[in-house]
Amino acid sequence: MFEINETHDQNLKSWVESANAPDTDFPIQNLPFCEFDYETEEGAAWSVGVVIGDYILNLNKCLEDNLIDEFEGVPGQHFFMIENLISLQSEKNETSLNLRRKLIDLLCENAGEEIQSKVARNLHPISECTFSVPLPIGDYTDFYCSIFHATNVGAMFRPDNPLLPNYKWLPIGYHGRASSIVVSGTDVKRPKGQNRGDTEQPPVYIPAKNLDYEMEVGFFVGKGNQMGETIPIENAEEHIFGLCLVNDWSARDIQAWEYQPLGPFLAKSFATTVSPFVVTMEALAPFRVPAFERDADDPQPLDYLNGETNRKSGGFDIKLEVYLQTPKMREESVAPFMLSRSNMKDLYWTIGQMLTHHASNGCNLQTGDLMATGTVSGREKDERGCLLELTWRGKEPINLPNGEERRFLEDGDEIIMKGFCEREGFRRIGFGTCRGRILPAE
Amino acid sequence: MFEINETHDQNLKSWVESANAPDTDFPIQNLPFCEFDYETEEGAAWSVGVVIGDYILNLNKCLEDNLIDEFEGVPGQHFFMIENLISLQSEKNETSLNLRRKLIDLLCENAGEEIQSKVARNLHPISECTFSVPLPIGDYTDFYCSIFHATNVGAMFRPDNPLLPNYKWLPIGYHGRASSIVVSGTDVKRPKGQNRGDTEQPPVYIPAKNLDYEMEVGFFVGKGNQMGETIPIENAEEHIFGLCLVNDWSARDIQAWEYQPLGPFLAKSFATTVSPFVVTMEALAPFRVPAFERDADDPQPLDYLNGETNRKSGGFDIKLEVYLQTPKMREESVAPFMLSRSNMKDLYWTIGQMLTHHASNGCNLQTGDLMATGTVSGREKDERGCLLELTWRGKEPINLPNGEERRFLEDGDEIIMKGFCEREGFRRIGFGTCRGRILPAE
Repeated sequence: MFEINETHDQNLKSWVESANAPDTDFPIQNLPFCEFDYETEEGAAWSVGVVIGDYILNLNKCLEDNLIDEFEGVPGQHFFMIENLISLQSEKNETSLNLRRKLIDLLCENAGEEIQSKVARNLHPISECTFSVPLPIGDYTDFYCSIFHATNVGAMFRPDNPLLPNYKWLPIGYHGRASSIVVSGTDVKRPKGQNRGDTEQPPVYIPAKNLDYEMEVGFFVGKGNQMGETIPIENAEEHIFGLCLVNDWSARDIQAWEYQPLGPFLAKSFATTVSPFVVTMEALAPFRVPAFERDADDPQPLDYLNGETNRKSGGFDIKLEVYLQTPKMREESVAPFMLSRSNMKDLYWTIGQMLTHHASNGCNLQTGDLMATGTVSGREKDERGCLLELTWRGKEPINLPNGEERRFLEDGDEIIMKGFCEREGFRRIGFGTCRGRILPAE
Repeated sequence: MFEINETHDQNLKSWVESANAPDTDFPIQNLPFCEFDYETEEGAAWSVGVVIGDYILNLNKCLEDNLIDEFEGVPGQHFFMIENLISLQSEKNETSLNLRRKLIDLLCENAGEEIQSKVARNLHPISECTFSVPLPIGDYTDFYCSIFHATNVGAMFRPDNPLLPNYKWLPIGYHGRASSIVVSGTDVKRPKGQNRGDTEQPPVYIPAKNLDYEMEVGFFVGKGNQMGETIPIENAEEHIFGLCLVNDWSARDIQAWEYQPLGPFLAKSFATTVSPFVVTMEALAPFRVPAFERDADDPQPLDYLNGETNRKSGGFDIKLEVYLQTPKMREESVAPFMLSRSNMKDLYWTIGQMLTHHASNGCNLQTGDLMATGTVSGREKDERGCLLELTWRGKEPINLPNGEERRFLEDGDEIIMKGFCEREGFRRIGFGTCRGRILPAE
């Protein structure tokens, strides 16, 4: 459905010079969406934008200037993003491809001088913008789709039975908290909660000791479905607007005590961080890979989760990296330390399967809903997407280059996540960063 | 905080005659809030209202007519309800009590003739209104606060260990799905989902077999809290706007297979039904009772969940009843059959404790968020708030008076929930009904 076409040509260049740097996350082939605030002479203003090199293109202004067309049925530019998403997702994404083509026309080096000067007036340096959570998120659902993560975590808590019998039959997920989703760069206060590390003693209400991150990929629902309707697996991707990075902060000590029998609750709901840029399904077309190859003795997905397109190209080859910078490292000007690198293609379930499963009971998905994959871990030890796995529940601390060590996150620690796609013959497509620093509990 | 005052006087009568009927749910002492649509000569209109006898008083029109005052900081009547809720909850609820007094002035039999005729123009017969979910719900959280329910369910799945060790230390809860919350009267389609009743065979994707209801009480957040802030137990009720009835429909076969390790997901997210009327904390003041009396060997709540007011009056004496009407009963004009009656006072945790616990990690609660208590079951067999318990997982079917039997819900079955408060010396305060009928899966 999302096919490689002329918009992915690596030879396309932009008159916005920073978009042509070989290591940029944001060449003209990417153009991720965001919501941002910027200063004007009349005060702060808000707009929807797309990222190009080191700039944000102000789409609301482009609409005003008739550089792009208002979509039919869109009541006003203030609702551009929301309504747009619905439009973008209708009619098998023709509209989203049309908009992509239009934006490339405006930004490519062949654009006429008049166009360039009109468009240039609507560019804001990224450094002068502040970003919001990119969409108004109604509901947030977090999955658990890395079999390596699930097996590692299971092994710690249930050594005899690490992977539960349902795992290979359905994408395990749970409802998350939408209100506490924040955008990259927002500080995260260490939560307090009940801790019963010593099972001989009563629990105590104290600041979380085992604070962790989880490296995840999120995806936003574009077009929703009516309550009572399901979404066939072959149509699932029509309902996905784009992807972002997600840090599902987790307090492991709170989680261990509270999670039975209804799952994680306060261990997660204190904060979830998302990156500000939504990389579209269109931009990711060259980086599609087959769904995870199951072992010969693994079951095949049930019919409603099994589709040819999904099998052939349901996966994404997206490289993910997690870095840590401690307060001491900042003081000493030591660069952030890479904790792990993993890849989204190692997920056992595809995002199409997650979405189809979510709606398989008739649950209505709505424009702006966020779903996340769960921690993306790989086969290898250095591909583990959270500290719980990396330090094996704190038993094997990580030694940092400056002599510090970490079992879990300390106050002042910053976690920086990166995501990007690389493939011979194509421009690099990046997600930017998803970062957050831990503030002490009060 | 919510004290009995002159607004609870049983001798107060209304010039709206139906509000004086002894068995009405909606005397002048109640005045629950709702959102409703009604017909005008210009087409359908929307408003916030309060229920009085058999009528809805149109608050938007009352504002227009200067019968009630616009609250400071409220931008316009369209946002009346939402903004109002925030106002209502500020300054220790003085505003909500003021509005209550004002409405009683307008509706009581001593109101002057001119007032009566002005107000009467803004009354709509309930039968001519359609209702919405009473508030825009951001996040929905469901608790598990009946120890009798938790013990019964635990006994079925873990006979040796029915109640988990955390149960008496914290109000267990989980994030629910907000998008599929519907108002009373909405039909509910039987969900499809993965069923692995036969563990020797692969699971199958089929319509849920063990469809159930759960009799719960919901409460809406009025004033929220900032992310990173907690809510002291003694202030918890300042954040609660009012209560309603909730039917947390549950597909037990889907739940049994999917719920480990992250809790219920698709077994619940296909639909949750709420009653349309929010009974305010003010109206419920006469029906407050001490928090659940714990056994001598039960732990006391940790300090952050333990407050004197909560202990003395954190509970609610609200009678709850569940009725079933099958298609055959409807055909034969047989009245709905009472499946159970229970009482909210039997909950192990108070709603104040639920709310304080929810924010104890700094999670930001927002105006309009819905929390629910979990199934309200009592000590006795006929006080069990769902079929799972009543039929002991289907093993002990219920015999209906017309010869039918039920293990779980069949297509066409309607569940009708009622809630009301009664106390010598006070008028009955009711919640109306929360009903929903099961449509067949497609």
